[in-house]
Amino acid sequence: MKTVEKVLIANRGEIAVRIIRACHTLGLGAVAVYSTADKEALHVQLADEAVCIGPPEPTKSYLNQESIIEAAKMTKAVFIHPGYGFLSENEEFARKCRKNKLKFIGPNAKVIGLMGEKATARQTMKDVGVPVVPGSPGGFSTFEEGLCYAKKIGFPVMLKASAGGGGKGMRVILREEDFVKEFSLAQQEAQHAFNDNEMYLEKYLPHPRHIEIQLMADQFGNVVALHERDCTLQLNHQKVLEEAPALAVSNKTRQKMVDISIQAAKKINYVGAGTMEFLLDDPENFYFMEMNTRIQVEHPITELITNTNLVELQLRVALGEKIDLAQASISTRGFALECRINAKEAGKITALHMPSGYGIRVDTALYQGYRVPPNYDSMIAKVIAYGHDRNNAIALMKTALDETVIDGIQTNLDFLAQLLDEPEYLHNKTDVNWLEKLTKVG
Amino acid sequence: MKTVEKVLIANRGEIAVRIIRACHTLGLGAVAVYSTADKEALHVQLADEAVCIGPPEPTKSYLNQESIIEAAKMTKAVFIHPGYGFLSENEEFARKCRKNKLKFIGPNAKVIGLMGEKATARQTMKDVGVPVVPGSPGGFSTFEEGLCYAKKIGFPVMLKASAGGGGKGMRVILREEDFVKEFSLAQQEAQHAFNDNEMYLEKYLPHPRHIEIQLMADQFGNVVALHERDCTLQLNHQKVLEEAPALAVSNKTRQKMVDISIQAAKKINYVGAGTMEFLLDDPENFYFMEMNTRIQVEHPITELITNTNLVELQLRVALGEKIDLAQASISTRGFALECRINAKEAGKITALHMPSGYGIRVDTALYQGYRVPPNYDSMIAKVIAYGHDRNNAIALMKTALDETVIDGIQTNLDFLAQLLDEPEYLHNKTDVNWLEKLTKVG
Repeated sequence: MKTVEKVLIANRGEIAVRIIRACHTLGLGAVAVYSTADKEALHVQLADEAVCIGPPEPTKSYLNQESIIEAAKMTKAVFIHPGYGFLSENEEFARKCRKNKLKFIGPNAKVIGLMGEKATARQTMKDVGVPVVPGSPGGFSTFEEGLCYAKKIGFPVMLKASAGGGGKGMRVILREEDFVKEFSLAQQEAQHAFNDNEMYLEKYLPHPRHIEIQLMADQFGNVVALHERDCTLQLNHQKVLEEAPALAVSNKTRQKMVDISIQAAKKINYVGAGTMEFLLDDPENFYFMEMNTRIQVEHPITELITNTNLVELQLRVALGEKIDLAQASISTRGFALECRINAKEAGKITALHMPSGYGIRVDTALYQGYRVPPNYDSMIAKVIAYGHDRNNAIALMKTALDETVIDGIQTNLDFLAQLLDEPEYLHNKTDVNWLEKLTKVG
Repeated sequence: MKTVEKVLIANRGEIAVRIIRACHTLGLGAVAVYSTADKEALHVQLADEAVCIGPPEPTKSYLNQESIIEAAKMTKAVFIHPGYGFLSENEEFARKCRKNKLKFIGPNAKVIGLMGEKATARQTMKDVGVPVVPGSPGGFSTFEEGLCYAKKIGFPVMLKASAGGGGKGMRVILREEDFVKEFSLAQQEAQHAFNDNEMYLEKYLPHPRHIEIQLMADQFGNVVALHERDCTLQLNHQKVLEEAPALAVSNKTRQKMVDISIQAAKKINYVGAGTMEFLLDDPENFYFMEMNTRIQVEHPITELITNTNLVELQLRVALGEKIDLAQASISTRGFALECRINAKEAGKITALHMPSGYGIRVDTALYQGYRVPPNYDSMIAKVIAYGHDRNNAIALMKTALDETVIDGIQTNLDFLAQLLDEPEYLHNKTDVNWLEKLTKVG
């Protein structure tokens, strides 16, 4: 009997379930890991084996590198699929896997590190010819330096904390005369939040859209781009609703973004699934923001429009297969939309009815009777609608959300349903700040 | 405010749910009807309004024409969607709807009648140039007549009861010398089952496959064929597993079947969704069997490979829209597979986990806590897998069936899972009798 190779899934929730199914479809064994808060979780039930790796706190379980590597050795897993979040973009973990003769599913540790640090990623991409938002060449700590860069780039500018994230230390400065005051406030915020007062600045784009290119690269230097997604609708720097294809992008610009993304991935010897995130402004200029060196939450919308299985491709690439897709043969059909359903609290799901049927896909690890633990990300389900065009996909999504029942905990279902009725959303007249403004007004 | 037009769905179960969703996606109101056995049914919960039309016995509720028409008038429904089964191919009901100024979603009553009677349908199709299995020109009651026809057609022949169905009075006669004896037995069976001893006979095809062409026609004479399905796997004359496209059909034959089906539909002034069912034998000859003048259980596999929404198209046609698809533009992509999950008994669903995620669609009206009533068809869910090719779709289906949990009642889940492992199925070396033989051996 042929030995079944095993993949350890170093994650939980819907993405762990997604990966387990892909393993099974390919004939691979799936090893789940779980914290004590997750012993009743769906991913544990669907896997062939499951290993408890620690207590509920992420740092002691899903971020616990030693426990996870130990679990892989114990179960004789050959591969480690990190999913998204947790250790998926952790350079040290990728390196440790390799040292322990485990195949980390993703690019090599060096590339993860290169893309993990914002300024380095930006510089690397700039060096290989990817347009980036004009900005300061590096970090700085004094307002004099900052003002000098700002004047060179031209106002308005966006000030950010070098160590930043989550909007801390971030400031839009519209005019030169506001610079000194705003810089001082932003730097104080950065110091407080990250214990680091280094700042950098970029040109501020007034109405940017978030457009990203899905890449897949094999171990032989073949890279394909599976077109783009529009993830403009964000709240607190979290994506809320994603679409593919991006109607705001012309064919010409799409082709440019695709070509540049493929070139960049080739130059950094990228392997696996990855996403180049860009900001697109009004006259269709686009600027690199960051590269995610992992599968993304919103990958299903790309799968639907391109009819590819991205997680299966990740596994095939890891197994040493060549990507047998010619870039020219990758076309899209129809329109896909994803809504992220978030829990507003922990608790037991007392009644559950998820939508299904024509054009509807649901990726979730929920089940009736499941207790959503308080310890992890609030995203509990993704509802994905696939129609012949945007309006059709939106209509399918509305019908799907209307029939969804998640009793026992508060969720953002009503918010999502209302969002789909917003005239500006329906007319696709949004930018990355639109949803934030909408929720402040509403 | 614009008045929302309403569709009354004269059905129950998954197809009622399917139609309600399509109504909502198009902005139409959905009126459910239900028997007292179905007051907790999902279709009742998802509809905008629901009317009880009688007791559990189908003849007194879902087949009760007066009750249903009364419900439509009461709720001011404009359309009646009959689904499949029940009144969907009832000429009298279609006529009664029209008399009551209700728009029956389907072809007109005359066409339903024409296709509803086997011999008439066969003759009609023969007259418009569709190949039919060579057979007796009509019914007969004596063995002398029968033998004369059989000799003309050539042995082996298949003897059937004119009033027949369900295999009663059906006999394969391999040689001339067996004719008298077998005829006598078959006729006795027919007399007993249908109180009618009229027989007819056809050429017997040794290894036929069941191939059907999906048609959609509007009220303006436009007819398109949405390619074919392979429904060869049957048990007790019930389809068990359906596939699309049909790999046993060459492009040349497919084109012939499509052309002939479209021509035939045009000649009988067909309107709405319809299916031409054919038998295909080894050297790729095909013969008309019957036409189903309604949506079919297995319609989702066609939806997946052609990226069309057949129930939405039915509604659009009924609303008076033109079909804006050119036949030449209808292509297929990928491979779809449907498994019908049947309940072997009535009872309460104590735990339910249906598969979902990449490539999986489930059409069902089940929910956890639902009580499957004993009064209706045993089909409780359709699991549909869509992959890039047949092997991929089968692998996705296996993974999906493996994770499915339907506790509280016995189902055919294990049978379906085993079927997917049969070497002859995997190599697509089957015919319409294969599954029957397999289950008798097993």
